[in-house]
Amino acid sequence: MDIDELRDKILTGDRRSLARGITLVESSRADHREQAAALLEELRPEGRQALRIGLSGTPGVGKSTFIEAFGMMLLARGLRVAVLAVDPSSARSGGSILGDKTRMERLSREPGAFIRPSPSQTHLGGVARRTREAVALCEAAGFDVVLIETVGVGQSETVVSEISDLFLLLLAPAGGDELQGVKRGIMEIADIILVNKADGDLKATATRTCADYSGALRLLRKRPQDPEGFPKALTVSALQENGLDAAWDEMQSLTDWRKQSGHWERNRAEQARFWFAEEVRQALLARLETPAARTEMKRLADAVAQGQATPTAAAQDMLASLDMA
Amino acid sequence: MDIDELRDKILTGDRRSLARGITLVESSRADHREQAAALLEELRPEGRQALRIGLSGTPGVGKSTFIEAFGMMLLARGLRVAVLAVDPSSARSGGSILGDKTRMERLSREPGAFIRPSPSQTHLGGVARRTREAVALCEAAGFDVVLIETVGVGQSETVVSEISDLFLLLLAPAGGDELQGVKRGIMEIADIILVNKADGDLKATATRTCADYSGALRLLRKRPQDPEGFPKALTVSALQENGLDAAWDEMQSLTDWRKQSGHWERNRAEQARFWFAEEVRQALLARLETPAARTEMKRLADAVAQGQATPTAAAQDMLASLDMA
Repeated sequence: MDIDELRDKILTGDRRSLARGITLVESSRADHREQAAALLEELRPEGRQALRIGLSGTPGVGKSTFIEAFGMMLLARGLRVAVLAVDPSSARSGGSILGDKTRMERLSREPGAFIRPSPSQTHLGGVARRTREAVALCEAAGFDVVLIETVGVGQSETVVSEISDLFLLLLAPAGGDELQGVKRGIMEIADIILVNKADGDLKATATRTCADYSGALRLLRKRPQDPEGFPKALTVSALQENGLDAAWDEMQSLTDWRKQSGHWERNRAEQARFWFAEEVRQALLARLETPAARTEMKRLADAVAQGQATPTAAAQDMLASLDMA
Repeated sequence: MDIDELRDKILTGDRRSLARGITLVESSRADHREQAAALLEELRPEGRQALRIGLSGTPGVGKSTFIEAFGMMLLARGLRVAVLAVDPSSARSGGSILGDKTRMERLSREPGAFIRPSPSQTHLGGVARRTREAVALCEAAGFDVVLIETVGVGQSETVVSEISDLFLLLLAPAGGDELQGVKRGIMEIADIILVNKADGDLKATATRTCADYSGALRLLRKRPQDPEGFPKALTVSALQENGLDAAWDEMQSLTDWRKQSGHWERNRAEQARFWFAEEVRQALLARLETPAARTEMKRLADAVAQGQATPTAAAQDMLASLDMA
């Protein structure tokens, strides 16, 4: 693959090349990893930045409908929108490639939009790196907004929030009981809670749910990266395309405030530090995953299990064998 | 330090030498680590094994009273008992050395007993290795039962359960509401739940609480390592020394069953494998903690934070610098 050519085409915003670039960063083949690192390093000096929005919501909350309506609204404002899906569980269902393409039919036909389904991978650490690098490629391709969508499973929200500039939590109208069902940890990383389906029969329930969450959010400690009134809850109707402009205005005012106060830049710097350290740790531990290392690990683990060596002594042997390799 | 002499004295069951050995494995000095590994390796072929009992319970449940009464009962049966405390939080309170010595006054005066307070350390990974090695020293010193006590904070129960042959959960008599307060994860690692304080005014409540937990335990899936009826809940009174014999009988019958079915041996082998792999990982990651590595990590993290390198490229540089060191 000609990395220089790919770089140039990605910089023109060519979506086909962007897709090829993402396929490259998603690959775990050693030569692909090297090319991916080179591509990212060549694009870095351009310094292009998008607004990275993390989005989480439980199944059935209308996430696809929201992303499509929200994306169309942004396009109408002249903004280019990329959508990346992070779904560590998609390997189980054989990937969500078909699902992602068909569930946002309108948006996927727009030339200003780019939709990338989640790769069929389970390992969350790997998902984090690939998503982070895919985001960097979307930014280099000149997208103004990158939506990073995750399903509400395990740690994926935390990972996505470490990649995002702001985090949206999409919720369904519900009774007071279900308020408790939202994990406190997710509440704490959400900048804006959107109660969807504020339309038809559910409109009153949505309004009440929104008030409940507003109350709950006021109980959280104010965060230094937030202006007065944030985090906040709003109602939207993705179906009727109501409240999307208001939600976008809130995102912009939050972003403006953070940029002016320096929090936005500091957050990006902290995230970069975090992912650098994480990548070093993962790369060190990956040395245990080569065929030779796995064989030696197995041999020593067997010896330890049979009482022929202490874990401590066997670990020293293992490290010595890594250094000789 | 003369390791051969220390080994010989530990093998005679000398408690002073055992204490010196544990101090050695608790040290993080490189030369001490080397001596500790040599000592453990020299003791390994003796193959002495104790029954390792993990014990957890919330503060106020009467853990010290229980350990003392339970330990005295075991001594009366001609068994030698070692008590190790694992308290990752003890660094904050300046260590619990005084507390541990005074709170089990009777037991600490017995020649057949050995009580070791928790070291003043916070890092759970380090606590795990040190505790594991301290247990091995107690076994080499000929103790029949090693009680590994932990307070109910964070992951320490999981760590202790990975070191133990069986796990006790000590609970106080309580209303039905508080049943929910016990984390499901701890319920799942408990082999025997002991409801303490089944005496005086609390006796009826303790009996009811015990029945509640018995019911809750029946809802858990039967584990392959358990005979019929386990995990189970029992009432005890550490104060009146009631139910301790019955509890010990249950522990023995569970242990006998596991030994006969092969689960006991398999569990020890699995634990050894686990700790070996964990130690390899920790030792690899420790390479990032040398002064030179820390300096380089900081330099590269700064560059990444300032956008002068991608996390991926900087991580590659870091690994290269580790290999040259």
